[in-house]
Amino acid sequence: MTAQQTDHAGLEILSFESCLRKLASVPVGRIGFVTAGEVIILPVNHVLVDERDLVFRTDAGTKLSSVGDLTPVTFETDEYNEADESGWSVVVHGLTEVVEDDAEVARLNQIGVRPWGGGERPYWVRIRPLSVTGRQTLPSVTLPAD
Amino acid sequence: MTAQQTDHAGLEILSFESCLRKLASVPVGRIGFVTAGEVIILPVNHVLVDERDLVFRTDAGTKLSSVGDLTPVTFETDEYNEADESGWSVVVHGLTEVVEDDAEVARLNQIGVRPWGGGERPYWVRIRPLSVTGRQTLPSVTLPAD
Repeated sequence: MTAQQTDHAGLEILSFESCLRKLASVPVGRIGFVTAGEVIILPVNHVLVDERDLVFRTDAGTKLSSVGDLTPVTFETDEYNEADESGWSVVVHGLTEVVEDDAEVARLNQIGVRPWGGGERPYWVRIRPLSVTGRQTLPSVTLPAD
Repeated sequence: MTAQQTDHAGLEILSFESCLRKLASVPVGRIGFVTAGEVIILPVNHVLVDERDLVFRTDAGTKLSSVGDLTPVTFETDEYNEADESGWSVVVHGLTEVVEDDAEVARLNQIGVRPWGGGERPYWVRIRPLSVTGRQTLPSVTLPAD
């Protein structure tokens, strides 16, 4: 049994392994990046590959296509339960890499992420993480009734 | 009956009124901003007030406290259904305003957002929107079985 580590907002700090498991457990994350001086946040369908990298699909001419090679991005996933007011979030800071290698594209196509938004989205972008951090709410304390 | 407007990614464009309804319908959103050259994305419990403003609580010494007056922020909410691969997202770009007025703080305290993360979070921050946009997936087409 190990003591839970909490941050100064009172949230439990998730381990790196736990963060990766949570990243892999949800089909949607949100990618954040700066373009024209503005923070863009877009939901994308992602997959965790090669232990710790994230990949998603995109198409030319979309907002997401301004993410090229070596763009600094922030990727966030979370899940919450309104009934018991609990939740977790995992945030990845990393650099993007447009997947150009044909064999690699073929391999990723086999993994087969199907973006729910539809469209062709023939390009793959990989996020190589520089940091992976996560937090979750502590089990809630039952408040005494008035 | 009006035709659905779609963007070039094939997503339905939500009306302003629909965006506001969706913003108000979920208890958690994600605030994005730049600090020290990095995009931060943090989940927060928010409430829609005065028709189109968003408010949330914060505390000194947290990452979120670097959001002061007139900080450009991006606020994202979404909901998705893994079973039918549908979802929507609404994104607000706006400027923050730390609520200083005692009467206004008292009014917001009465609205009573309780941040699930716990902690005191005595300060209120308001986001005054500059733009509000939203998208949702179109009803899915049933694919023929192989």
